[in-house]
Amino acid sequence: MLNPTALKCLHHRRRQLAQQIDQPVLLWSGVSVARNFAANCFPFRASSHFLYFAGLPLQNAVIGLEAGQLTLFWDEPSPEVALWHGPAWSRSALAAQIGAEAHAPLSAVPHWAKQVASLPASTQACRQQQSEWLGRTVLENRSCEPASESARSDLQLAQAMVQLRLQQDDFAQDQLQQAAQITVAAHLQGMKTTLSCPSEAALRAEIESVMMAHQCPTAYASIVTVHGEILHNDVYPHPLEPGDLLLVDAGAETPLGWAADVTRTWPVSGCFSSTQRDLYDIVLAAHDACIAQIAPGLEYRDLHLLAAQIIAAGLVDVGILKGCPDELVERDAYALFFPHGIGHLLGLDVHDMEDLGDLAGYALGRQRCDRMGLRYLRLDRPLQSHMLVTIEPGFYQIPALLNQPNLREQYRDCVNWERLAHFRDVRGIRIEDDVLVTPEGGQVLTSALPTQAAAVEACVQASKS
Amino acid sequence: MLNPTALKCLHHRRRQLAQQIDQPVLLWSGVSVARNFAANCFPFRASSHFLYFAGLPLQNAVIGLEAGQLTLFWDEPSPEVALWHGPAWSRSALAAQIGAEAHAPLSAVPHWAKQVASLPASTQACRQQQSEWLGRTVLENRSCEPASESARSDLQLAQAMVQLRLQQDDFAQDQLQQAAQITVAAHLQGMKTTLSCPSEAALRAEIESVMMAHQCPTAYASIVTVHGEILHNDVYPHPLEPGDLLLVDAGAETPLGWAADVTRTWPVSGCFSSTQRDLYDIVLAAHDACIAQIAPGLEYRDLHLLAAQIIAAGLVDVGILKGCPDELVERDAYALFFPHGIGHLLGLDVHDMEDLGDLAGYALGRQRCDRMGLRYLRLDRPLQSHMLVTIEPGFYQIPALLNQPNLREQYRDCVNWERLAHFRDVRGIRIEDDVLVTPEGGQVLTSALPTQAAAVEACVQASKS
Repeated sequence: MLNPTALKCLHHRRRQLAQQIDQPVLLWSGVSVARNFAANCFPFRASSHFLYFAGLPLQNAVIGLEAGQLTLFWDEPSPEVALWHGPAWSRSALAAQIGAEAHAPLSAVPHWAKQVASLPASTQACRQQQSEWLGRTVLENRSCEPASESARSDLQLAQAMVQLRLQQDDFAQDQLQQAAQITVAAHLQGMKTTLSCPSEAALRAEIESVMMAHQCPTAYASIVTVHGEILHNDVYPHPLEPGDLLLVDAGAETPLGWAADVTRTWPVSGCFSSTQRDLYDIVLAAHDACIAQIAPGLEYRDLHLLAAQIIAAGLVDVGILKGCPDELVERDAYALFFPHGIGHLLGLDVHDMEDLGDLAGYALGRQRCDRMGLRYLRLDRPLQSHMLVTIEPGFYQIPALLNQPNLREQYRDCVNWERLAHFRDVRGIRIEDDVLVTPEGGQVLTSALPTQAAAVEACVQASKS
Repeated sequence: MLNPTALKCLHHRRRQLAQQIDQPVLLWSGVSVARNFAANCFPFRASSHFLYFAGLPLQNAVIGLEAGQLTLFWDEPSPEVALWHGPAWSRSALAAQIGAEAHAPLSAVPHWAKQVASLPASTQACRQQQSEWLGRTVLENRSCEPASESARSDLQLAQAMVQLRLQQDDFAQDQLQQAAQITVAAHLQGMKTTLSCPSEAALRAEIESVMMAHQCPTAYASIVTVHGEILHNDVYPHPLEPGDLLLVDAGAETPLGWAADVTRTWPVSGCFSSTQRDLYDIVLAAHDACIAQIAPGLEYRDLHLLAAQIIAAGLVDVGILKGCPDELVERDAYALFFPHGIGHLLGLDVHDMEDLGDLAGYALGRQRCDRMGLRYLRLDRPLQSHMLVTIEPGFYQIPALLNQPNLREQYRDCVNWERLAHFRDVRGIRIEDDVLVTPEGGQVLTSALPTQAAAVEACVQASKS
């Protein structure tokens, strides 16, 4: 299942880790989680840190990493399991598959090494096993100063993971390209079937069925909604009405665990209204400008502020905001309509390494600021070659935000509320692509999916002819 | 969202509970479970016991039940949650929705009543909260004699739940009918698109997209496989080849949590081979005979033995088994090819109340026997009116079973191995329907889906014309 390039990358990752940390490392893959009773589980998802070094999503496995060598700890299933779940690999065959130098049953884990570093296992059952076998709890809160030797080594491991996983190697890029391609195909299917879909739920089914046909789960709960102003909307109760804008934020995850994260917004009817198109073009201008700027060394936070600037200027042009764009950015007035960050890291996790808090997203010594325009920025570090980021500006009319009396007061002089009312047929717009940082600039993995308003319209209308 | 019939049934259930147990009862709905990091969760599934009384899948809620009255404990979301997840119901509106007599914040739970009975919450985080708030752990193992007063009352509650949930009321029947109808539509879509589907994964996508378009998750991991001999096969790696039989075991769950569970087996080419048809007809004969027998008072275990008898006789007829069918049943020889039980309870859970161990499946005083033919029987009690059960006989050639030297020795005189080799194009067949026990006999909720070989073939071939 793993090709030679993948195996080469896995070996390289293991050696790289050894250069970052002296101690032996143990990582748990996790186990399936019960849905409504023990035998009825959610689909298994291996821990991303485990996947990064082991390559395959093995259930109930532990890996030991030391001096670039990998030991696989895993128990072969019982004969009864074979009756219900089919023939299983032997442990030695599995070890060979992932290029492990050694293998042993799980019972060998507690005796494998002293003073190992680890990261919290992803399920409660595994965390308990981890505590028992390591004789200690594993650091979960990385915001405070580590109080013990073991907590220090866990933190060092977390920092090493960030250094490694920030940059996508060939295996990762191959997987991320696959995830992007399948996601593009899924969105295209969504666009092309919109005119015949009666509801959000039916459209979601069209989109996710493309991923499913490629054996890919969704990397996160898809957003398929005519209420794009609800940022994390994962229910699908509404019919599709001709005047609506549809916001689709959906991404595939490859069977080996690598994610895509793509958003498009299109008119249910196949034609943007003039108000919808005006705001769409502003969001698209921000999207395009940010991607054009991407290069190693650039501060990601500056991309956020660039998007803010373009959105502020655009909203002044159409009469929604009043004043000088620079000042509107300074005062965070744009964030009334674009309250989230311009994007985030992407990799094995859709918000890559978010399990480590802001350790991956924020450069050492930096932390979230509480300015309205920046508090939801998930990434604040200089871009590096082979980093994968999303660029996802948006425009929303969120009642919970726009109706806050203190905000209305604070931005009384900035917003033309009567003018805004003309744009009531725009509840939410977002355009999001996955961009690999390369020495030559940003490489958009999802560029096959149209962004221009006219191209999007043509795609939605294609099935009519 | 809940219609008057549903509300009436909910009130009735609450009063029924009060007749079964004197103590106040607390039930947790549960919380979303993290997939790869805390903010990226699996879709929320409320605890079935909670759903049974509350009706709606509320996240992070607790209900208190006493003397037929329901108190809803729930915290209204913070304004920041509204920003990301949209406007929320107020607690009082939600309480009205589910017909609660009282409502309070979660912090009131620990003070609500003394000596309450409870059932284990479905997630670890909730179980911890439950222990803290109740000041004790909640009985998980119901197989041993309860050692304390509180363990006794938890067991009494579990037994009361079984008494209530064994019989489906009007609200439940309405939901179960919906789940069955959507599942039938999904299977029909699968049959009708088989000829154009290249792979198991593509066919799974066709089937599940029908459920998804109705806002229904799958009640369990779908089985869509050309390797039907792997009983719980939840991967989809194979292409569909013309000579293959395809086994599809897939069921929808309504948004309110009620399940269907249906299996059909059909030829990828649209035409059964003669060997496939011979064995298919044997399985179907067992299926039909069991359903024809269903009536209140009948022992479910006798249905299993009836299926065993028909399968044994059929396999003798085609020359796979040798000897007298009665004796082959007596000796469990049929279980070489039909190693699981004839079915199980169905309701809010696909194996209803399996979280309570065999408390629901096995009548008081009965327990699993370790005979090869009966050890996987999940239900052993007399049928009652308004019980919903599955009937799912099968025939499989499972290498892990048929190649066991001790079994081959034990059944040396029963199996004609050369003759069996003629049937190598049959790896697995199962036919499963959902049957409501009524005073007039079995009512098949899924009868709109064809079972006769010719009708199944016609359905697969329909898209050709």
